[in-house]
Amino acid sequence: MSIAVVGSVAFDTITSPSGSVRDILGGAATYFSLAASYFTQVRMVAVVGEDFGPEQEDVFEKRGIDTRGIEHTAGKTFRWGGTYHDNLNEAKTDFTELNVFERFQPRIPNEYSDTEFLFLANIQPTLQADVRRRMNGVRLTGCDTMNYWIQRTRAELAETLKLVDVLLINDTETKMLGSDNNLPRAAHKVLAMGPRALVIKHGEYGATIFFREGAFGIGRHPFRAPTLPIEEVKDPTGAGDSFAGGFMGYIASQEELNREVLKRALFYGGVMGSFAVENFGTERLQSLTREEIDARFQVFRELTHLE
Amino acid sequence: MSIAVVGSVAFDTITSPSGSVRDILGGAATYFSLAASYFTQVRMVAVVGEDFGPEQEDVFEKRGIDTRGIEHTAGKTFRWGGTYHDNLNEAKTDFTELNVFERFQPRIPNEYSDTEFLFLANIQPTLQADVRRRMNGVRLTGCDTMNYWIQRTRAELAETLKLVDVLLINDTETKMLGSDNNLPRAAHKVLAMGPRALVIKHGEYGATIFFREGAFGIGRHPFRAPTLPIEEVKDPTGAGDSFAGGFMGYIASQEELNREVLKRALFYGGVMGSFAVENFGTERLQSLTREEIDARFQVFRELTHLE
Repeated sequence: MSIAVVGSVAFDTITSPSGSVRDILGGAATYFSLAASYFTQVRMVAVVGEDFGPEQEDVFEKRGIDTRGIEHTAGKTFRWGGTYHDNLNEAKTDFTELNVFERFQPRIPNEYSDTEFLFLANIQPTLQADVRRRMNGVRLTGCDTMNYWIQRTRAELAETLKLVDVLLINDTETKMLGSDNNLPRAAHKVLAMGPRALVIKHGEYGATIFFREGAFGIGRHPFRAPTLPIEEVKDPTGAGDSFAGGFMGYIASQEELNREVLKRALFYGGVMGSFAVENFGTERLQSLTREEIDARFQVFRELTHLE
Repeated sequence: MSIAVVGSVAFDTITSPSGSVRDILGGAATYFSLAASYFTQVRMVAVVGEDFGPEQEDVFEKRGIDTRGIEHTAGKTFRWGGTYHDNLNEAKTDFTELNVFERFQPRIPNEYSDTEFLFLANIQPTLQADVRRRMNGVRLTGCDTMNYWIQRTRAELAETLKLVDVLLINDTETKMLGSDNNLPRAAHKVLAMGPRALVIKHGEYGATIFFREGAFGIGRHPFRAPTLPIEEVKDPTGAGDSFAGGFMGYIASQEELNREVLKRALFYGGVMGSFAVENFGTERLQSLTREEIDARFQVFRELTHLE
């Protein structure tokens, strides 16, 4: 099956305790697409500038990713610079140059009209809702957002949340969106806003999925997946988007949409996130095999499963 | 089998968003003993003042806990007052009155000499080492400590760590003790100091056990257990000690000491911690049944286990 993703493609300049890189390929849609490409056919909707050339195009082509929805326009591609100090959970933003991304109006090619799954990466909520409405044949929509939109465009975001099936955000965003400092209580308040399931990403502690009563199965018991304790996190950039790519990509590869599939998807999300941080940028995500991915899935299982 | 615990018995005055209580029975040895009493025979070593009477004694007696090692002395029992604001992970200490605890010199009754397991709750490291040496017939020793001892008595603590099998501390303490901001790297540095296993308590994210190469089985793969997402944490006091009680108590109830036992013990630790926070003080821990405990163990399993 196929999944479309709408979001940013960027050039990142990153410094971490493990080193520095300059103008490497990044952006939410990039990480998502590469991670998801090991599970299903991926179709991108994004915008790039004149500095995006064959070298970048090649990264996607090698993974069989459909880039017909990437609009090429005059100007420079979105650029972001960030530094990670000792606390690798938090990037200090050095600069943000939106460039062509500032006027991003997602264009969905006709060839994408039979797409079955959709992921709305972290962009302005009204744009997310617009894409979702135009792709109203999809079976399941995943969505990301951030504190910036929660604080400044709450009403617009609330409209978007009515149109999505699974929201993927972190602890702080959940508490902010649910206006509650208790995580499970905040989670249920977020679910009441629209999504049938909420994936809360806990960084180095894994992720928890909360279900709306009766959604994808019986009951409303949450489920938790781990991450791998990693002795050298070289670059945390894109971990969340890679998580989303593994999670949504696995779902899109399955016939059934039930809780057991979503639980396994949560494990695959953690697996792809754990690969992403092992090297700078998308390097690790470009060169994986499905065998490596499934071997790590087993490691995740052994990390948490009793006999 | 039997387990001895040395640590504090206290009267706590606690305020949380759910209410306030005054001078209720608390202390690390108290929470530990009550939690462990559902799994094995518990023997306490502690000190109390003249204000500790039949009402408090009765709490332990009802759970079949041996209190012959609780020394009664002139003066008042240790008192602690703390307030939890919105962030329930952190207590603001309102007051600490060490009272009789200030001159605590653990006295081990002769009747405890055949004790098979030992837990050294959070007290001065030299006292911990002293108790451990006097109880040199034990099969396995667990140990807790805190930032105060790590910062001020590092040399003494290092001596104690050579004498213990399992250290149970939190993330911050692990990074401080291992002098490393990366958790798994810090964990292995702590293991190099003596313990064969290290349990890192992550609060609402569960706990991870790291093993020294070859300890309790093959390899050095860690294992992670969850906690339950709880919608109303009434009082987090004693959660860590209750975790230790469930963990050590379960171990002491088993014939074999292997990784599978320690993994299940990690789940039981989380289970007992999750009960402890459901009500103020030790109230919930006083009234459990083994059936309730095993039912929650199943909930923890379902929270993390794929089919």
